[in-house]
Formats: sequence, structure tokens, C-alpha cells
Amino acid sequence: MPEISSYGDDSPITAFATTPGSSALTLIRCSGNGALNLAEKIFSEPEKLRQTAGNTVLHGWIVAANEKIDEVLISVFRSPKSYTGEDSLDISCHGGIAAGKGVMAALRDCGFRDALPGEFTFRAFMNGKLDLTRCESVMELVSARTDKGRGHAINRLSGVLEHEINATKKQLVQALSGVEIFLDYCEDEISAPADEAAGHFSGQRLVQETLARLRKLAQSWQRERIYQEGILAAIAGRPNAGKSSLFNLLLKEERSIVTEIPGTTRDWIEAAVSLEGIPLRFADTAGLRESLDPVEKIGVERSRDLLESAELILYLIDGTAGVTGEDRAFITGNRPPSQLLLIIWNKADIVPMPTTFPFTANGPIGVSAKTGEGIAELESAIVKTIEERLNTADEQPVSAAASLGTIRQKNLVEAVAAALEEALVLAERKEPLDLIAPLLREAVNSLGEITGEVSTADILEEMFSKFCVGK
Amino acid sequence: MPEISSYGDDSPITAFATTPGSSALTLIRCSGNGALNLAEKIFSEPEKLRQTAGNTVLHGWIVAANEKIDEVLISVFRSPKSYTGEDSLDISCHGGIAAGKGVMAALRDCGFRDALPGEFTFRAFMNGKLDLTRCESVMELVSARTDKGRGHAINRLSGVLEHEINATKKQLVQALSGVEIFLDYCEDEISAPADEAAGHFSGQRLVQETLARLRKLAQSWQRERIYQEGILAAIAGRPNAGKSSLFNLLLKEERSIVTEIPGTTRDWIEAAVSLEGIPLRFADTAGLRESLDPVEKIGVERSRDLLESAELILYLIDGTAGVTGEDRAFITGNRPPSQLLLIIWNKADIVPMPTTFPFTANGPIGVSAKTGEGIAELESAIVKTIEERLNTADEQPVSAAASLGTIRQKNLVEAVAAALEEALVLAERKEPLDLIAPLLREAVNSLGEITGEVSTADILEEMFSKFCVGK
Repeated sequence: MPEISSYGDDSPITAFATTPGSSALTLIRCSGNGALNLAEKIFSEPEKLRQTAGNTVLHGWIVAANEKIDEVLISVFRSPKSYTGEDSLDISCHGGIAAGKGVMAALRDCGFRDALPGEFTFRAFMNGKLDLTRCESVMELVSARTDKGRGHAINRLSGVLEHEINATKKQLVQALSGVEIFLDYCEDEISAPADEAAGHFSGQRLVQETLARLRKLAQSWQRERIYQEGILAAIAGRPNAGKSSLFNLLLKEERSIVTEIPGTTRDWIEAAVSLEGIPLRFADTAGLRESLDPVEKIGVERSRDLLESAELILYLIDGTAGVTGEDRAFITGNRPPSQLLLIIWNKADIVPMPTTFPFTANGPIGVSAKTGEGIAELESAIVKTIEERLNTADEQPVSAAASLGTIRQKNLVEAVAAALEEALVLAERKEPLDLIAPLLREAVNSLGEITGEVSTADILEEMFSKFCVGK
Repeated sequence: MPEISSYGDDSPITAFATTPGSSALTLIRCSGNGALNLAEKIFSEPEKLRQTAGNTVLHGWIVAANEKIDEVLISVFRSPKSYTGEDSLDISCHGGIAAGKGVMAALRDCGFRDALPGEFTFRAFMNGKLDLTRCESVMELVSARTDKGRGHAINRLSGVLEHEINATKKQLVQALSGVEIFLDYCEDEISAPADEAAGHFSGQRLVQETLARLRKLAQSWQRERIYQEGILAAIAGRPNAGKSSLFNLLLKEERSIVTEIPGTTRDWIEAAVSLEGIPLRFADTAGLRESLDPVEKIGVERSRDLLESAELILYLIDGTAGVTGEDRAFITGNRPPSQLLLIIWNKADIVPMPTTFPFTANGPIGVSAKTGEGIAELESAIVKTIEERLNTADEQPVSAAASLGTIRQKNLVEAVAAALEEALVLAERKEPLDLIAPLLREAVNSLGEITGEVSTADILEEMFSKFCVGK
């Protein structure tokens, strides 16, 4: 990894903005001081590039060492009217691997350096184009796997969270307005109300209101996290219980080899699907059976690790074998406390599901991975199980409600809430203002950190280095 | 697949031009009669879109049902200055899956239909923007896997093949100029030379020259095919000979599980690499061993199919076991006549390669897949073996020489050459002009088919339906 400190400069940078692959086009982004001049060196129409206004598209060839590399369209952006705020170019090359690679090589040769992860967005932030919550929403949007996830990220990109944080901060600043020490922090001139004149804090109501808003924001994170990361759902059960068949059915395609030999699935494979807007990663595990075959043994060990970390277990009972001791041991055994469990009675087309079970658990649901019977019911049950955990009932419409998009935001909101709670305890005890004020000041600062109004180089570098290259 | 006949219309179409995935941006292409008007319905700045000149970039939001879908840049192109020649838009959305999907859904809802494969390029052809050889080069460029492949496709995209075909055709038309029947075909007024006046053909020299040019073109195809499709190289050998280790080493990454248990590789896996600009697909085969395990048995059968179709076999001898009867049987056995074979003595770090072998074949080359010894030599030997077959020595510089890019072009060039050969035989025998002329006319026609000057709907549909969507 390059020196993080190079985030600070405005040198001309370039990166693929799309993945080179078998697609019609590949897009390469360039930005920085002198970017347009450098590009003149490898563009067949340097005069046009020099003279064109911003927000225009030019057609021509990328030419290096007298060899035509590719026929391209170049979108030209002039500072400050660009994503980064700098002079920028978007080069639309032919798709595939070789054309993009050739153009990228020409750009490097003429003086562009590879962009660091998130460096375009970093520059947009530094040049006042986006606050931090909007910067983060850009990455959330790119990672969004479902339409709901996209909607939440767009909500933040359009500034809903930024406005909520700023409104919250304004309330807090108001609560602090009478406190003498605050005057050192804020340069507004405000006369102190009676309570403060008497050495006590008068802003409890405002602080309580702020705290309620922040708690609601903090709660939004659990749901957001799931929309962003998805739920890891592992399919478990005895060998030959039909795990691979169920996996394929849930994926609606042939991914896993399905045969009649126990222990066929050698390792676990994972695939992402979306059920009613909730992203899930289904994992098919190897048979949970002791084996002497060393290759299979590795698979079994990895499966156990997977079962530990899964947030939802779909446990398959082989209907033709009935509930075995092994099944019962797993179902009633120890699992991580937050792990969800759904019991599935497979091969219900051969042996119908019994009416009673020797254990209590979610489900059981009778399915046939072979005929597809019961799969729709299973999918509904999966969604219901997850939504119950999320307590989705009281969700506001996405477009209206502010919600948090990153763990960084959540940690800061919780830090603000903790400071405010402490301040309220002190105020209740009529403690002196000079004990309460620092807590409120810290809270205002942390809110400023969320939007990036208050930030240190360390925080920024840590944040942007997690972005993808090209953003 | 939709009705092919819809290729013919100019209705507004849309397609992803990049693969939605974890990238910074996703590009969606739109084109057709009324495309700009339709887009106004879902763009936050409809007035700007209506009034803007072509080749400009607008910033705004895609909005559907009062919900913000994504923040986008729209590049606007006005007919005839666009790729297709029609009014067009390139919409640059945020990357990831959800943003592109959301924008695409909005485009469909407001009246765009999904583009057929190659439909944008089809329209470019129909509107006289590109001849057929250039259209085909667009797809070759997208599929190019190495820089040489890109260079060859760019050569055709910039018109080198089109010009060569037209020049060849001009020669032929000249050869036909004296032939009366030709006057019915071509509307130029040309007076007949003496030979034709006497009922004989006078254009042999020109036809011979044309034939020589076409034969050279036809020869270029074998090399082109390899740059486009790559060489399938299968790694074969007895179980535990080190096939997976060698495969990983050639790929320079851990792809295949390598263990000490014979028969570990259950099926064959393939990976593309490039050696000195030649694209290769290395395939790691399962152990060629009779097995009772049904899963493994399937793998062994598939391996045999692979070994049949491979163009190059890298046959590994396990140095610690020496040359076994099985090895000898494979090496001296029947293989497809065009298949290349390289013998490799593996585990040379433990048992050095002997100086004599009981068979003649390319190689043997001593390597150690464990230590990496001899791998560079092996890579050189692979390149040398392929280049010998290609007889690369007399290759002209890519930028100068015309070369064929598709099997369609090659078949047409061969048809032209066959017609000209027949015409020359007839001319040699002093056969009458009315036997020779139809052959020359057929040749001129076929040359016109290569560039698309002469074409039927069937041919076009067949051709463009092989393109990728979005091109």
C-alpha cells in the first residue's frame, strides 16, 4: 500500500471506474492539477481538448508512441464544476480487458499516477463538494445489493443524514448558549439566561430532545448493517439430508454438484441472493460427519467455523431418516445467542412432516428440495424470522427518515449520546456548569466529526483508505 | 430470444454498457428516435436536457415516482453525431448492483426497450457510421485478451481491412472492366480492350495479383484466431505427478487444492494467462487413473474429453516414479494430428532428468513444480512450440498489415479466392467470357459482403446477434 500521506496532494490521478471485463465499454477516471494538459499528449485532438469548455464530450483516439491504442470519448470537466472540484476527465474506452489496459498504460506513461482507494471522493470532500456522511454514502451506494439498500444510501447522499446531524448540533449549541465556557468555543455572542447566571444548567429539555433523536439514529444502524452486509445463512444437516439440492433451489441455478454419495460437498460455497429486499448469503456446508478422508476432514472443519459465524442456520432434517440423535444434538445444543435457527423437514414428498417434534424451534417447515414443494413457504419464513429480529414494523419511509450508514457514524452518535446522558445526570444533581459544559462541548465536537466539519488527517485517511479505487 | 426482426427499427433502446458490480461507476447506454424526450421524464433537469447541444454532459438525478433513484451524469449526443447516428445518451450511474438496476428499471418504465445483442453497432452500420469489418472489430476489441490482440482489432477498427478489401475489389472491377457482362453490373462506362473484343479475357495478371493478396489475407486468420480464442493447453499426467502444483505455478496463484492424495483434483479447472502476448487457457485435469469412486470417475471422463480437444498437451512425468508404461502409452499413443505435445519431467529437484528417453517428442524439459526450477524455461518452450506452428517469423508489423478478424470474413475471402482460381483456369483454357464473367462477378459480390456493401438481412441478423448486449 502506498504512503497514505499522498492523499493530501492534487497531483493528476487515474483509475478504472468500471471493472474491465466482457462489457461494451470501460470507463477510466482522471482528475487533478494539470490533468487536461497531460491528456493532450496522448489524445488525437489536443487542440480541441485545450479549447473545449467544461461538461463537453470529445471524440478521438488515444495514441501512444505513434500507435493507436483505442478510439474513445472523453468527457471534459473544468474546475470547480466536477466531482472532485478539480479539472477532470472521464475516458470511455472499448470494453474488454485489453483496450482499458492499453489506455491506462498510456495515461501512466504520460504522468498520471494510480489513484489511492477513495481518492476522488477524498478530493471532493477536501474541496467542499461533499460532507463526510455523503462521501460515505457514495461507497454505501456502490456496495448496495438491494433496492432498499440503494434507497437508504441515496437518502444519505441527498443529505438527509447531514441535515439531521446539523439540526441536532444546532439544538445542542442552543442548549449550551447560556453556558459561559461555551462562549470560548463558539464565537456567537449570546447573553446568559437566569439559571446559568445562578451557576446552573437550564438546557435539560433541549438535551433530552437531542438525546432522543440520537438514540433513534443509533437504532437505525442495526437495520442498515443488514442491508449493507447481508445475513449469512448456513445450510446445515446430516450427510445426504439434501443440503446441496436446497442450496441450488434457493439459488435457482445449478452451482453445487448434487449426487447420492454422502460427503460429496467437499468444501462450502456461498452465493448471494435477495429475499424481499433483504440480502442473504446462503452457504452450503459439507456433511457434518466425521470422516477419515483428509480432504473431506478439512471441509468438515471449515463447515464448523461457518456454522459458528452464521447469523441464520437452516437446519435440514432428512425426512426419510427421521429425527436422529445427531439432529437433536445440533438443534438443542449450544449456539451463539444471537444466531437464528430454522428447522426444515426435507423430502416431505416421500415422508410427510410429522405433527409433533421432540424440540421447540422456529419451524419446522416441510419442503422437498427435489420437487420444489414448500420452497416459497420457506422463503417467507426466512424473511419473517429476520424481520422479527429487526422489529421492522415501526420503520418510517426511507425517503423521510435519517439513518446511519456506517459503523463510524454509529460510534460517534453513541459517544455523543453517552456524553449527553452524563451531562443530564450532572444537571439533575445541580452540579456546577464547568463540569457539564465540557461534556456538551465534546458532544458538539463529535457531531462535527460525523459530517467532517471537525476532522483530523488520521480519521480521514483511515476512512478513505477503505473505499474502492476509482471512487 | 426476442424476434430478430426487431433489429430493423429505430425505437429507443437501452442496455448496460458496463457490468454492474463493485466498481465506482456503471454506464448505461440509450439510443433511438425520441430517446432524449423519454429521458426527460425521469431526469431532474428536463429543461436542460431539452435545450442542451449534443456532446455535452449534464448533472442531475434520476427520479421515478417521486423517489430519487441515483445521482448521475448524462452525456447527450444528437443525431447524426453519435455512435449509432441516432439521438443517444450515456448515463453514468454510481457503481454496484442496485443503482444501475434502479436506473435501468426507470428507463424501462418510461418506454425504453432492452437492446438486442449488438443492436447499437447494428444501428451504427445501418446509419453508415461503420462498415461491417469495423463493426466486427468492435467486438474483437472487447474480446481481446492481450495487447497484441487489441492492436490487431484496432488496426481493423481504424479501417485497414476495409481499405484492403476495397482496394482488392477495385482491382477485380478493373479486371472485369473489359468484359461486356460486367457493364450490366457496374454502371461505369468503360470501353472494352482488344482481347475482350475477340471474346477472350485479358485480366489474368490483375486477377493473379488479387488472388495473391487474398491468399495472404486468408493466411492471417490462423494467427488472428489464436489471439482471439487463445490456445487451450491441458496439463496431463499420472496421479500425483504434480499437475495441480504446476498449474498453480503457471498461474502464479493458489487456485487448485494441492495435497498428497492421488486423485485429489475432482474435475478440471481452467484459467487464462498470457505468455508473450499469446493468450493461453491452462486446464488442470483430474488424475488419469481408473477409479471406483463415481464422483472421481465423472472427473476422469471429462478429463479425457478435454485431452481430446486441447491444442497443446503439457504431459507431466513424475520424476520420482520415472517413465512408466502408462506415460509411454500416452506419449506414443494416438492423438489428434494437429495437437502439440510438450513432455515435462517434474520433481527434477529430487530426481534429475535423465539424458535419454525411450521416445521422441518436444522437450523433455526438467522442472520442479515445488521449487519453481525450470518454469521460465518451460514458459519459453511453450511460446516457441506455438510460434513454430504459427510460423511467426514473417509477420509484418500489426499497424501496417491487413488481417482478417472473423471466420465470416475468412470464409468470404476463401470463397472469393476459389472463384478467382476457377476463373484463371477457364481463362487459361481460353474459355468464352460468358463463363468467366459470372465467377468474377460472384467474387466482387463476396468482397462487397465482407464490408457490408452487399448484404442481406439474414447475414446481418446472424452477425449482430453474436455481439454482446450494450454494443
